[in-house]
Parts: sequence; C-alpha cells; structure tokens
Amino acid sequence: MTLNERYSVLFEPIQVGPHTAKNRFWSTPHAIGYGIDNVASQAGVRANRAAGGWGVVFTEANTISPDMDKTPFKMSRLWDEGDVRNQRFVASEIKRNGALAGIELEYNVSVSPMTEGRGLEPKGLGGSMGESGMLVPYAGTLMELDRDGIEEIMQIYVSATLRARDAGYDLVTFHCGHAASIISRFLIPYFNTRTDEYGGSVENRTRFIREMLIAVREAAGPDIAFGLRLGVDTLDAPIGLGDRGIRANGDTPQIIQALDDLVDYWDFVPGVEDWGIDAQSSRTVGENHQKPYVDGLKAYTAKPVVNVGRFNSPDTMVDVLNNGQCDFIGAARAGIADPFLPEKVRTGNIEDIRECIGCNICVSRDVVSMPLQCTQNATAGEEYRRGWKPEEFSLAKNRESDVLIIGAGPAGMECAMVLGKRGLRNVHLVDAESKIGGSVNWVSKLPGRHEWRRLIEYREHQLSKLENVEIILGTEFDADEALDYGAGIVIVATGSHYSRNGLDPFNRLPIGLEPVFGERLLTPEQVVRDEVEVGERVVVVDYDGYFMGPGIAELLAKQGKQVVLATKGEHIAEYQRRTLEASHTLRDLRALGVKLWTETAVTPAGPDTVSLTSPDRQETFGVDNVVLVGPRHSDDGIFHGLQQRKSEWAENEIQMVHRIGDSVRPHFIAEAIFSGHRLAREIDTENPAKPLPFIRERRIIDSSPEDYQLGARSLSSIY
Amino acid sequence: MTLNERYSVLFEPIQVGPHTAKNRFWSTPHAIGYGIDNVASQAGVRANRAAGGWGVVFTEANTISPDMDKTPFKMSRLWDEGDVRNQRFVASEIKRNGALAGIELEYNVSVSPMTEGRGLEPKGLGGSMGESGMLVPYAGTLMELDRDGIEEIMQIYVSATLRARDAGYDLVTFHCGHAASIISRFLIPYFNTRTDEYGGSVENRTRFIREMLIAVREAAGPDIAFGLRLGVDTLDAPIGLGDRGIRANGDTPQIIQALDDLVDYWDFVPGVEDWGIDAQSSRTVGENHQKPYVDGLKAYTAKPVVNVGRFNSPDTMVDVLNNGQCDFIGAARAGIADPFLPEKVRTGNIEDIRECIGCNICVSRDVVSMPLQCTQNATAGEEYRRGWKPEEFSLAKNRESDVLIIGAGPAGMECAMVLGKRGLRNVHLVDAESKIGGSVNWVSKLPGRHEWRRLIEYREHQLSKLENVEIILGTEFDADEALDYGAGIVIVATGSHYSRNGLDPFNRLPIGLEPVFGERLLTPEQVVRDEVEVGERVVVVDYDGYFMGPGIAELLAKQGKQVVLATKGEHIAEYQRRTLEASHTLRDLRALGVKLWTETAVTPAGPDTVSLTSPDRQETFGVDNVVLVGPRHSDDGIFHGLQQRKSEWAENEIQMVHRIGDSVRPHFIAEAIFSGHRLAREIDTENPAKPLPFIRERRIIDSSPEDYQLGARSLSSIY
Repeated sequence: MTLNERYSVLFEPIQVGPHTAKNRFWSTPHAIGYGIDNVASQAGVRANRAAGGWGVVFTEANTISPDMDKTPFKMSRLWDEGDVRNQRFVASEIKRNGALAGIELEYNVSVSPMTEGRGLEPKGLGGSMGESGMLVPYAGTLMELDRDGIEEIMQIYVSATLRARDAGYDLVTFHCGHAASIISRFLIPYFNTRTDEYGGSVENRTRFIREMLIAVREAAGPDIAFGLRLGVDTLDAPIGLGDRGIRANGDTPQIIQALDDLVDYWDFVPGVEDWGIDAQSSRTVGENHQKPYVDGLKAYTAKPVVNVGRFNSPDTMVDVLNNGQCDFIGAARAGIADPFLPEKVRTGNIEDIRECIGCNICVSRDVVSMPLQCTQNATAGEEYRRGWKPEEFSLAKNRESDVLIIGAGPAGMECAMVLGKRGLRNVHLVDAESKIGGSVNWVSKLPGRHEWRRLIEYREHQLSKLENVEIILGTEFDADEALDYGAGIVIVATGSHYSRNGLDPFNRLPIGLEPVFGERLLTPEQVVRDEVEVGERVVVVDYDGYFMGPGIAELLAKQGKQVVLATKGEHIAEYQRRTLEASHTLRDLRALGVKLWTETAVTPAGPDTVSLTSPDRQETFGVDNVVLVGPRHSDDGIFHGLQQRKSEWAENEIQMVHRIGDSVRPHFIAEAIFSGHRLAREIDTENPAKPLPFIRERRIIDSSPEDYQLGARSLSSIY
Repeated sequence: MTLNERYSVLFEPIQVGPHTAKNRFWSTPHAIGYGIDNVASQAGVRANRAAGGWGVVFTEANTISPDMDKTPFKMSRLWDEGDVRNQRFVASEIKRNGALAGIELEYNVSVSPMTEGRGLEPKGLGGSMGESGMLVPYAGTLMELDRDGIEEIMQIYVSATLRARDAGYDLVTFHCGHAASIISRFLIPYFNTRTDEYGGSVENRTRFIREMLIAVREAAGPDIAFGLRLGVDTLDAPIGLGDRGIRANGDTPQIIQALDDLVDYWDFVPGVEDWGIDAQSSRTVGENHQKPYVDGLKAYTAKPVVNVGRFNSPDTMVDVLNNGQCDFIGAARAGIADPFLPEKVRTGNIEDIRECIGCNICVSRDVVSMPLQCTQNATAGEEYRRGWKPEEFSLAKNRESDVLIIGAGPAGMECAMVLGKRGLRNVHLVDAESKIGGSVNWVSKLPGRHEWRRLIEYREHQLSKLENVEIILGTEFDADEALDYGAGIVIVATGSHYSRNGLDPFNRLPIGLEPVFGERLLTPEQVVRDEVEVGERVVVVDYDGYFMGPGIAELLAKQGKQVVLATKGEHIAEYQRRTLEASHTLRDLRALGVKLWTETAVTPAGPDTVSLTSPDRQETFGVDNVVLVGPRHSDDGIFHGLQQRKSEWAENEIQMVHRIGDSVRPHFIAEAIFSGHRLAREIDTENPAKPLPFIRERRIIDSSPEDYQLGARSLSSIY
C-alpha cells in the first residue's frame, strides 16, 4: 500500500537549522528509566523509533554537570568523556536508522542530596530554599548565583554542548519546559526575583539564555541545530503560577521574539513544574490538549515549531499542520506504543497503528528509574535486552502445532496475535463471553478510562487479519474439554476476579466486611460490569492502590451519591502518584465531594454503619452499600485441573500446558499483555514456561563485548 | 601501644564451621547502595573493613533470583555468572585484607513490579496479597507455593549457594531476619497459615529450612560455613505480630534446637518486617539494645552466636562476651563510622575510635539506593571512587603553608583535623564561641540527640594530639582580621542559621508569621540553644522536614506544653522516613499529645491565634508562641567580604580563600563534615575549590580497565 495523499503533508521535508528533517514526525525527549549507563537499552529504544520512520529522534533530557546530581534517578548524564562514548553509540544508532539525532540538555535545579556528585555545590537563582525542587527541605538550599556563578553555568552549558557535538548529535534542545532547569528559573518571575540585569523585564529575564545561546553557537560551530523546549504558559493558580508566571497570552510572545534569532526551532509545552500537566493521562485529556496554550504562537517565530499533546490519529496530525498550529508533530507516548506509527501512515496501514491508551504506565516506571514499559506495546524497552522488534516475528519452529488459548482477555488476545504472526498452524482463542477483551470491557467503563478500549480494538483488528487464528466466543470451558480439544499446546488465560473477602494485607486477618454487610457489600465487577443498583451512601474500601478504588468513587459520586473513599494505605491512589494522575484524581474527587480517608481502618459499627479510624481522627458513617476493592484472586481452576491430569496429556497429544496473565497472579494489564507476548515469542524454546535470559547492562569485572550479547556466558546460570 | 589484657577476649580465635575466625569482630551484612554493579565501590567498603581488623566481613544481602526483582533498588544480586565474577572480586578483596568473607542470601518476598525480572513470577507461601511487601497493592500478589514451587525455591537456594562458593565466599548466611525472606515466612505463623506439612508445628514450619540446608550442604560440600540470621522475636502488637509471631520466650528456642545441627553459626536479631526496629537510631536505643530478645538464646545452641545492637564501646563488647550473651560482636554502623575499630582496640588506641552517633544517615542513603555516607566518617563510600582511606593521609605538597579556619563547627573541625594530619605547618582553628563544635553543641540538646556530641568529642581528641593545630576560642573575626591574619590559606566555615522569615518554598511568598507574632515567633536557636521562655500553647511550623521540627515539638511537649506540629509537606519528618525514625517519632509525638498536621498552611488569625488549613480539615488554635523551623541561611559575610577584597590578597600573602560546610549552603551535618574533609584532602591540587573527578562505575561502551581508575580519560572533561 502507499501513502494516502491526505497524509502527504506529514512527509514534506523541512529545514531545521543546518539539517533537513525528512518528515514531520518528531520523537520528543522523554526519559525511559535506562539513563545512559544502560546504553544499549537506551539506544535500542531510540534506534527503533528511527527505524519506525520518525524524522527526528531525541534521546532524553540530560543533566549536564555532577553539581546537578539526580542520584538515584537514572536520568541520562552528559558529564564526562565516558558519557560521550555512550551517547555516541546512541546517536549513531539513531542516525544509522535514518533519523536526525537530538539530545536535550538541562542544568536541572531539582537535585538529590548530592550523593554521587558529593563535594560539588548546586546553584540556583537565589539562595533560598524555594529555589530547589529537592526532596529534602532540610538540605534543599542552592547556592545563590553571583556573576561568577552565572559564568560557570554558562561554561557548563558550553562544555555539555561540545560533548553533545562530539557524540554526533544533530540537534540540541535546551530544556526550559517544566520549570526545572535554571534557564526556566531565569524566565519566570515567580522564581526570578533578581533586581540586577537578569531580573525584571523580558529583556533581562531572557538575558542569560541569549548569552548562553550565543556562547554555545560560537563554541559549537554551524553543524548543530539549536532549539528551546519552552514552557509557554505556567497556568492559573493554584496549579499554576498565576500572574507571577509567564502566559501564552502575556509575556510569551515577547520571549519568543527576543530569542528567535538565536534558535533554529521551538518545542512548546505548558510550563509548570509538575510535568504531570504536560504528560497528563487519558483520564484527564485527549488529543491536542495543549492547543489552548500553544496555538497562535507560531505567528511570533520564523522558525519551525514542534507541538505535542497525545497525538495518535494521523488525521488530527494533518489538521494541526494544515491549520498552522505547528510544523512538527511531537510525540513521546504515541511512539512508545507504536514506534512504527510514521511508517504505518506512509505505507497506508493506518488501521495497524497501535494507539497509545494514555495510561502512563510508561511514566510510572521512569519516575522511579524502572525500565520503560508500555501497556499496548510489550516490546517497549525489550529491543536490546531481549532482542525484540515490535513488528518482526520469526516463524515458530513448532509452527505445525495447534494451540488452544482459553480466555480472550489482554493476555489471551496478545498471545493469540503473536502466535498467529509466528505462523502457528491453528490458534483457537476461546472465551465464555460474547466478545473479546476480558476485563478491559468493563474496566474501560470507569470515568476517563474509555481509551483503554484501544487494547481490544488494536488486537481485534490484528486477529481479524490472521487466517490461522479463530476466535470462538460464548463458549464455557473446563479442564475436561481442554484436555479433549485436540490442541497440542494449551494456554490458560482465564484472568482474575476481585474477592468479597480474604486476608487484609495490613494484619492478615479476614477483612470481615462481608459477614456483616452480606449482599450490600459489592465488588468492583458488580458495580461497574454488572451495574447493580447502589444506594445513596457508599463507602469504598480500597486495598488496591491504583485506579479501581478512586474510579469507583468517582463513578458513584458522579451519580450523585455520597461517597467516602478509605484506604489503609498512606495515600489515596498510591500508584497514580507514579502515573502522575494522583493530583488530578484527588482534585476531582474532592470537587465531587468525596470524603478521603487514608491510614484508615473501616470496621462495621452496626448493620448499616461503618466506623472509620485513622491515627488522627475517627468518624461513623451510615451506609447503604460498601464497595470492597479487595484482593484479586487468579481464576486458575482450569490450569490446576489440567495439571492434576498431567498423566493424560500424552494420550490426548498435549505437549504442553501454560498459563499467562492474571491467571498466574493478578498484576497490571501491561503485565498480562507482556505475559502473553513473552510466551508466544518463546513458544519454541526448550522450556517456554521460563523466560530466556535477558541482557543485563552493568559493569562486569573484566568484561568483554560478548558479555553484552544475548546468550552471553555471564547470563548463563540457571535461574 | 599494645593490646590491653582486658580486651584480649575480643581477639581469641574461634572455629566457625570449617573456618577459624581470627577474632570476635563480625561485620554483619548491610546494604550500602552500591549493589554488585558498582562492584569496586562495594569491594572498597568491605576490603577496608577487613583491613581495619574485623575477623569476619560480610557483604550485603543478595537477591538470588530474578523472580525476586528489587528494581530500582541497587541491592546486590547473585543471579548469574556476571554477578559471580563481580562477587569474586569482592570476596577476594576481603580475604586479601585478612578476613573471612561472608555473603547473605535471600529469596526476598518484598519485590518490585518485576520490571527487570519481567516475565518471571514471584512466589509466596500463599497467593494472597498479604504475602507481599510489594509497594503496589494492585500488583502485589505472589504465586502460591505448591510442591513444585517449593522444589523450585529450594533449587534457587542451591544454585545461589553454588554461585557464592564459586565466588570464593567462606560463609553463607541465609537471611530470615526481618521477615522479608521466604524462609522467615515459613517460620512465622502470622504468615504461614498452611495446613500441609509446611505449616503448623515448629517441626513443620522449620521443614523447608531443614530441607534447604540439607540440600545446600550436600551440593556445596564442606568448605563453607552456613548460618542463619534469625529473627528471634517478632515483638508485641501493634508494632510486632503478637501471639501470631515467634517469640524469644516462646517458639524460638525450639526453632534453634530443630536447626542447630544444620548450621555452623547463628546471627540473632529481632524479627519484624520493619528493619527500623533492628536498625534503630540513637534517638530511641543505645548499646546492646537487642539484649532483651537475644540474651539467653545461646543456651539452646552448640554453635557460635553473633549479636548486634549499636555496639561501640570495647568495654561493652567484652562484657557481652564474658557474660555469655554471644560469641561474636556483630556490627554494621559501628564499622561504617570506624572501619578500624578492631585495630584500634588491638593496638591500644581506644580513644581514637570514631564512634557511630546512630544518626542513620547511612541507612537513609541506602534505602533509596544512594551510595553509602556517614556523618562521622567522611571517607565511607569513597574508598574506591576517590581512593580515600580513613586512617591514611598523605603529606600535603603545600604543607609549608599556614592556615586560618574561621569557625569550629563540624566543617571547620574536620578540615582542621585533616589538614593537621596532612602536616600543614600551622593550622589555626578560631571560633567566636567558648567551645568548639558549632551548632552540634545545641542540636545535640534535642531529645535523643545527645550521642551526636560524639562528632565533637572525636575531633576534639584528634585535634588535641596535633601539635600543628591551634584552637583559638572566644574570638570574633571579620574579613579585615582574616585578611591581616598572616595565613596564606583562609578557610571560612562560619555555618548557617535559621531565618525568622524568608520565602515559603511552597508559594515563594514571605512566610509572614513574624510580622504578626513579632518576638513571640521563635527560631530553633532561641528555643534550644538560648533556652528562651516558651509559653504553654505552641505551634511549631516545620519547613525543614528532618529532625528539627519534630525534635522541638518533642522537647516542648515533654515540658508539658500543648504543641501542634504542622508542615506544608506531605509528611511529618519527611527525611526521618529514610533514617527509619519516622514511625518511632510519630508514635512518640502522638503519645505526648502533640497534634500533627500535614499539607497544612499556618496563617495568623489574630494576635494570638493561628488558623491551620489542610485539604481535608481546618481549625484555629490559640498560641503563646510560634516556632518557625524555616529556611536556613548561610553565614557567608566573611567569605564575601574577603572576595570583595581579592585585590588585597597578594599584599597580605593570601594564596587562597575557600569556604566549606553550611557557609556555602546549609545542608546535612554529614555534608558539612565531608566538605571540610574533601577540601583538606585536596588542598594541594591545582584548584582545591573544585573536587577532583571521581570514578563512576557504569557500563561504558568499549571500556578498558583504565576507565575504572582514578585519572581515567573517560572522566577527564571539565565539569
């Protein structure tokens, strides 16, 4: 197939400083938990993006000096020649795969207690505690920048730029996007209260950046395109900075004009310190959500402009280009979910795009320096360490086998799809329900989770194209039937369910709500999937710590009910702190009048009352229903039934029985999909139940290049 | 000097399985944030401990399988041959320095969302959520162990033991100390509710360990000593597990007897999951604090017994050995603070021991995978990456210089001591106060902080022995006097102070309490150092997040005052969460009736009332005083005064002026001491103001051994 003319604008080359970008797809800087120490993993992710057709591919933001130490975060560093050598590998891998290579640099003022860079002293605009995003207020002061300090920071930017050039990068973005870099601090009056020539007017507040850009251009010569990732609007208080910030309809046009001669491109984003505004999940924003801040700013510059904002649809992309909103479609998450998005547009395979669901599991891993993962794309982050490519599937050695997969939820769908692509003779995907998708069908009914349906839609379309995969719905299975089915490979993917009771993980005693409330105690499935009638006064008891408890509270509050959300945990929606959703969720729940209780035991106080007790308060509430978001249990009956009858496998020509996804143990949806994908990728290994060893990037004493290859002896032990 | 006979018992050799320990000093397993990937840093710490005379030196606990993935924590791993190669280096460095080398192994059930070990499935005793210490309850379920699973875990222990043997370790401890390993889970009825032959009686609950010990002994042969780090008492509820746990005066003797034939030694500790009980700070416990749990247990075993418990004093050590409490003095923190403690006892230099102050800054770094640091010992963690040895000081190239150090607080004392040891001709340490120690003199008056005085005592003694160091007290200095003093090297160490106002870091507006409360607003110095009179109703406003706010609240509450402690931060005593003190502190403050408010704005509501507003509640309190634990500001007037008169340095024969410690920027006491130490270690480099590059252990593409040496080209860039 070929490029549809409608999309040809996306593939028009365009000049960026000294370079020509082959198209309008710009993979923006984003951290992936590998830093630059896991160099080949980092390169694997970026190279794959280039192979997928993005014209410009950035690696992540880099701290540029050990006096801005982010330890223990794995954020990339560009401190010394060792980093240059690693970055050179990343840049060359990007360029070898056909893209321009970009790097983002920042002197980041959100530092750690300086444990690796110990002995150096981080600097800020002022000496006050308020300068620093440091986690430890006690030690959170930065040194105040005097004239010498300004010179020193300038020199740090110059040195880092020279290192970036030596590493072979074509583009250098200076980060002033999320108010965490020192150049943002100069720009924003909230932070910049200086009374010298670096504070006050736009001219003064842009002075440092101008001087810095002049210095780096002079030092680096003509071969690099320089740009700014500029936070164009710092939003209204209390989330934003109000009239002490910079605003798209205020200072920002002036700032752009003051700097336009010195940059080759612009990358515009909202500019508050909480990057959860820029990288909001699909619960709160949709495509092109940054339009209110960035639209119209292109009028103030003669240089190409990059926008981001959850772009997934080529049609939207075309619109924003044609409307003159920007020149480049910037994306991070869309490219994680589908690195080959541009290629799929170019080759007319738009229906094959694996659209980002906006769940932010990717972000949740990076924020604690865990490696990149993606709910939609099981290969994300595995390019190097497992050698997986998202669109390449080898023919299975045992493809003359028939496969029965029981359960068409996330794990089963994914496994069937990959086995289908690997050419297994017959793959039967069966489910008791009348449609595929398993729990995603009802989970996606929670407020703001409708985009999660894309997990089903993408796989449904892929499966529909695979002639060797048959989907059989509305069919209950048990171990007997699985045994008799005639498939040599049986894969159980029967999922899990929320329990009506079980052990309280905080004291390992029975949770004990069901014995009192009986039928008036409801599970998430009852409330969301079965839509049972719920009374006016509800207490939601959350042992889950992620999206389900707050989602149900929101759902019921929106129906006008009086809702209390309680958890024994320290925080409401613990894991949403990592997906950057927590602050939004708390704000929304409070706005809906949901009462929030943390570190709280919920005990029955009578047939229709519960008592809530936290370390600092106690209250009794009348309730019509209690919703228990309690332990999830694997639905593993069929698997164990088959295990018990292992002696009958041979006579039924069963070679192997596996289980995947929540039927092994309840976990993230991302892990269920990964589990199905991994098994299918390795269905023809000696023991498919055990993952093959993966490459571990680390210092190994007396290492050789072989230690960093799949199959290395250093990885060879039994595990 | 020689060994005092009183201490000779500490140096009696003793048999441990097939090995002979040369003395009774046992450096217990403890994590140091380097894991095994930073292998030379890990080895540097342990080798130094061996050089300091510890007869047995352990590295840290190791996860033994990727299905117990602790990512992103740097906890050591023993998963594969690459890890073996690194561990072999650690073990050989320990042995080369004269100690037996030990390693601790655990199948740890407190796992991450399995991001590195992705695709593997962690197992627990039961399948319930309560099995797991996982941070994310949503994904917190483990697979239930069936018979095959038990065999698999057993095999994992065997394989790991063989790897430990291949790496050259002499001793292998299996961790069942803090209820985080699967073998603890078998032992403790709270976790082990199995009804098969692995649950119920002591015989059943010890079955797995017995089977495992038999299997590893058979596989590993006779050259390794095996031991258990056993949690002997799981304490009373609610901190402990009450009658569902195991108790020193209950099951524990039976457990010891059931396993005694299969072990070569025992390492006894309290056994709750929160290792903040075992590793309590000096705020809550003193020497031999574990005696109530461990004393008497030696009667039930024929094997040597290790005890720990903040042992610092050789006299206490002798007592516990002579009293028959144990056979080995186990220590982690005492050895961090002074690796050469045993050698100092052996050579009769007891007064030179740098005693641990029990602040737990070491722990606070490790818990977030930051490298080891110690308040007392600036060289801790720097052995390899900076090449520092705690008791070795080279003669300075510029030792024919005279030095003036202004300020005898932590930074100044340390700097004077190291310069003295490096042979500088004359070092004058001057202070306006009548004694040395700076802020430690009053900080150590806070409840439970008296041991912090050891920071002064150790240095005072060292300084008293240095003939080239003169201490001049009660002498105010200004820039003029410093300029005239006649010293070629001037070092400013004038500290910092708490401010009465300043910018609120949460909104960058003036904190605004002083304009209303005037003299009734007090600073920490006024309350603690100056002991000004404080009224009955006090609100402490904490912007500090560490020990000061809660310390003042505790101090005043113990004086019978009504105290409210409020912070805009998310938690009271944020940083004490990392020192493992927070739960103790909160418990103590609540017991004293202190009202705790988090995420709370404190605003004046009248001349003697304040209004407290958090997202979920609001209240007004009458106050007599408000204590502001606000921003700290550097006392840098002398430094800046000297800078302004740089043109006069030459005529006054001043070669250089530096500043150290809080006068650069307020920070941890540990960092003030480090700052003074670092400058003194590098006073004769080209630019002493800038630290020399340190070795960074990481994978570098195409690395050679030279990349991991001081002075490597890969570290050579300007920074």
